Amino acid sequence: MDKMALCEANNVPLTPITFLKRASECYPNRTSIIYGQTRFTWRQTYERCCRLATSLLTLNISKNDVVSVVAPNIPAMYEMHFAVPMAGGVLNPINTRLDAKSMAAILSHAQPKFLFLDRIFESLAQEIHHLLAIEDTHLNMLVIFIDETDFSKKISPNELDYEGLIRSGEPTSSMVTRMFSIQNEQDPISLNYTSGTTADPKGVVVSHRGAYLSCLSAIMGWEIGTGPVYLWTLPMFHCNGWTLTWSMAARGGTNVCMRQVTALEIYKNIELHGVTHMCCVPTVFNILLQGNPLDFSHRSGPVQVLTGGSSPPAALVKKVEGLGFKVMQVYGLTEATGAALFCEWQDEWNRLPENQQMKLKARQGVGILTLADFDVKDTETQESVPRDGKTMGEIVIKGSCIMKGYLKNPKATFEAFKNGWLNTGDIGVVHPDGHVEIKDRSKDIIISGGENISSVEIENVLYKHQKVLEAAVVAMPHLMWGETPCAFIVLEKGETNHGDREAKVVIRERDLIEYCRENLPRFMCPRKVVFVEELPKNGNGKILKPKLRDIAKGFVVNDEDNIGSKVVQRRVDCFTSRL
Amino acid sequence: MDKMALCEANNVPLTPITFLKRASECYPNRTSIIYGQTRFTWRQTYERCCRLATSLLTLNISKNDVVSVVAPNIPAMYEMHFAVPMAGGVLNPINTRLDAKSMAAILSHAQPKFLFLDRIFESLAQEIHHLLAIEDTHLNMLVIFIDETDFSKKISPNELDYEGLIRSGEPTSSMVTRMFSIQNEQDPISLNYTSGTTADPKGVVVSHRGAYLSCLSAIMGWEIGTGPVYLWTLPMFHCNGWTLTWSMAARGGTNVCMRQVTALEIYKNIELHGVTHMCCVPTVFNILLQGNPLDFSHRSGPVQVLTGGSSPPAALVKKVEGLGFKVMQVYGLTEATGAALFCEWQDEWNRLPENQQMKLKARQGVGILTLADFDVKDTETQESVPRDGKTMGEIVIKGSCIMKGYLKNPKATFEAFKNGWLNTGDIGVVHPDGHVEIKDRSKDIIISGGENISSVEIENVLYKHQKVLEAAVVAMPHLMWGETPCAFIVLEKGETNHGDREAKVVIRERDLIEYCRENLPRFMCPRKVVFVEELPKNGNGKILKPKLRDIAKGFVVNDEDNIGSKVVQRRVDCFTSRL
Repeated sequence: MDKMALCEANNVPLTPITFLKRASECYPNRTSIIYGQTRFTWRQTYERCCRLATSLLTLNISKNDVVSVVAPNIPAMYEMHFAVPMAGGVLNPINTRLDAKSMAAILSHAQPKFLFLDRIFESLAQEIHHLLAIEDTHLNMLVIFIDETDFSKKISPNELDYEGLIRSGEPTSSMVTRMFSIQNEQDPISLNYTSGTTADPKGVVVSHRGAYLSCLSAIMGWEIGTGPVYLWTLPMFHCNGWTLTWSMAARGGTNVCMRQVTALEIYKNIELHGVTHMCCVPTVFNILLQGNPLDFSHRSGPVQVLTGGSSPPAALVKKVEGLGFKVMQVYGLTEATGAALFCEWQDEWNRLPENQQMKLKARQGVGILTLADFDVKDTETQESVPRDGKTMGEIVIKGSCIMKGYLKNPKATFEAFKNGWLNTGDIGVVHPDGHVEIKDRSKDIIISGGENISSVEIENVLYKHQKVLEAAVVAMPHLMWGETPCAFIVLEKGETNHGDREAKVVIRERDLIEYCRENLPRFMCPRKVVFVEELPKNGNGKILKPKLRDIAKGFVVNDEDNIGSKVVQRRVDCFTSRL
Repeated sequence: MDKMALCEANNVPLTPITFLKRASECYPNRTSIIYGQTRFTWRQTYERCCRLATSLLTLNISKNDVVSVVAPNIPAMYEMHFAVPMAGGVLNPINTRLDAKSMAAILSHAQPKFLFLDRIFESLAQEIHHLLAIEDTHLNMLVIFIDETDFSKKISPNELDYEGLIRSGEPTSSMVTRMFSIQNEQDPISLNYTSGTTADPKGVVVSHRGAYLSCLSAIMGWEIGTGPVYLWTLPMFHCNGWTLTWSMAARGGTNVCMRQVTALEIYKNIELHGVTHMCCVPTVFNILLQGNPLDFSHRSGPVQVLTGGSSPPAALVKKVEGLGFKVMQVYGLTEATGAALFCEWQDEWNRLPENQQMKLKARQGVGILTLADFDVKDTETQESVPRDGKTMGEIVIKGSCIMKGYLKNPKATFEAFKNGWLNTGDIGVVHPDGHVEIKDRSKDIIISGGENISSVEIENVLYKHQKVLEAAVVAMPHLMWGETPCAFIVLEKGETNHGDREAKVVIRERDLIEYCRENLPRFMCPRKVVFVEELPKNGNGKILKPKLRDIAKGFVVNDEDNIGSKVVQRRVDCFTSRL
């Protein structure tokens, strides 16, 4: 029975590309994309993706060639999630918040054959080009700009532009066959960098199989029915929009695209298009609270909001739900191809007092359906922790939806998969009802506006400063961004900044911050620098960061950011690679 | 990137067994099974399944050994869907309506190592044993009876019984490891016979991968949220209850089990346990209409009913919905491991007049999400038919959720998979909105009470009668069962039953029906026999069954069955292998 030969009728590789073809057949006339005045149906989106894929084939894309893209949540970004893998390529969506240096580092590591850029990044492209030239990176990369669908800014007729590729693409039947002939579902579909820094870039390789299964879990975990209207508040470059890019095709949903995440834009789009679903980090809740609440008189239900990245305070959830949103929490990470835990609502919770409901809602929940297993383990003994809601352990997961590994980084891959699980590095407890609650984010990560900032990366830069002896960076609270980096610095001998006797100030806080800004993306720079004589350490000489975090908790940010009416209209890039 | 080595953390075979372990962890205290006074939680169901699997391992079950079961929708039947594959076995649920001869033929073909029987089938077991002995089938099969959980009828202390196996099973950690170590997701999990007849039995082999994907499609297609309360009106032996056996574990649902499908039992269970979902063939709608409608004063919504097997008339759907049910149609077949098309509701349909809504609801719908592709093709040219709602073609499907093939029947397997698709044999049209509507069931199948009856099988029996020259069996209408077989017979020369001159009646209608009853399960026997001088044929000598069907359409059944109040309390085995 196990020896029965399989054939093309019953053994088809799993890939989310099939969702697009199915959408074009099952929901041909439903609206696939809304973007300002632009409207596409699923049949049109399918055709545009086929055309783009054809053009990439004509431009000699080869199997597993990387195609990088730097763009906000515009239709092109959505289409590339299908067209690139249809042409056999691997999509590499790059965090638009990164600076040229970080982007250059990613490109240099990923070695893309094509780089698509939204036209607003034209000067950034020149900077990147310059950086890559200096570093003598042998990167033979074709740069293609994306203009608004109805307004090309092509400089010369020979320049390749996105809409031009769509126009010139003319799928032949042999091309279409090639487009859908994924031979192996373990082939890569996407390459997502977890942090855009120069040292040790971690490019998460996602397979077709993994993406497919993650999509199904997202649909089931969030209970997305057929035909949702999805507002793109979450950047697609973050873990492929938590796989909701592909999932929307699976559900024949409508993608409401936006360039700017502001309260005005969010509320306008919800009202205009009857948005049913959106994803965001809790930081966006503050934006929503400062905007005009929804008029629910003509709406049939609340807007479903999936939130992750950090645990929203119960009081904040309550306030946002009061506006007409229904919040569900998800926990995930790029390495898990999106969600890993969903806070599935239990019917019996409806009978609990509201405050208790909010507390339950703030937990991370249960393992998604397409995980093979999940557990919380004692990091020393590797034993499962008791389900008592108290004993902490590391969250570990396994399953076919998990990444293939880090590109060209076998060491990091090995570490991630130690003991036969993906070790998330996040610390949690299991409650008696099986729900997991994260008690501490992985020790070193700072989550600022939903973005993961590795303290180690900042420390590496600080350590390079000639006057710095030791550096330890931890999170400090920030009213707007949740957390922001705070650096504890021990200066080289004789370079002390404090004490009474040696009054000569050799380096000031703002100098070190300025130094960081020259060497790091702005959002990663410490907002506070504390000079100390020595750092607290354990017996093995390891810096005791929890002690520093305790100190940093007492600090108040004193910089140009504040929560005021001005903030509401500001662009908020507040998303995370750790969902 | 495609060469990255996979490991146990990111490459885990897909199997619905994982749903059970997950349910025990994510929904440990939720009720898994309700059966009369019996209640289990998901933790208990998991433990019972582990124990049963352990006992099977102790009884030396080997990988891919077949375990047959003849039982109604009782907890044991549910548990075996997990315990048998956990022990490495292949579940073979047998249609309880079959007679001893048909069951013996299946057992002889499937060669199970274990046969589990509900105690009510004790005399049937003896008959089967006798038949297998006569035929000298070398079947070394251990028979195990299933009693009610709290009431053993064991004859001797040495006799193995189901609850005894559960009691004696004591999973060791090495056994548990073995239980969850599915090495290959293409391994078989279930063996489902499409018709229980003696000639050419077709045993559909379902893989772990196929079952897994089908479950996910059932959950998404029917939009089953977390924690449904599912009433087992559909037999689990039919295509593993359209895969809802495993799917209920995936959703942490409650399985309400019943031995008897009567209006009384259905309504009682819905009221008592707050049933949210049930599946049935349209025949059950008649049962529902004759029972006491639901009291909806304390219910939050309608009972979701998934129906398939044959297309319910719009008027019938309307009536049933009036009782408090919400009907969704599904089209599937055992070969597709359950559903293939779901009639997904479109939001815009809510604005249409009710009659039009009912017509849309009576269509079979769009391909399920885990199909790789589906199409309706001209059977001659193999071209897709135009999407005009008029042009008919054969429904064909492909994808990893489709069966591996027919056991020991390469010819039938080859035929089924011709042209790289699973050829369903069902004829339909595609509407402009992408929804498929079946216009004609595959030509020869008679669907009686939801059961597929192959006319060829009946004809084979009739042809064996010494006085029969030619036989053609087609469907005739039946008030209760939808269709029932009608036989057209040409007698051997000189054996004519009609005409004026030769008045000697050599064989009567009731004799031939009686003959069929001796050789076929009762439900397969013709209710009417028509003696004719010759059968209508085409140029190639092929019998023109459409012509016969036209004649049979005019007949009225005249037998002991009628729709009366008596029927309501009758056991209804009205389900189908073609969903």
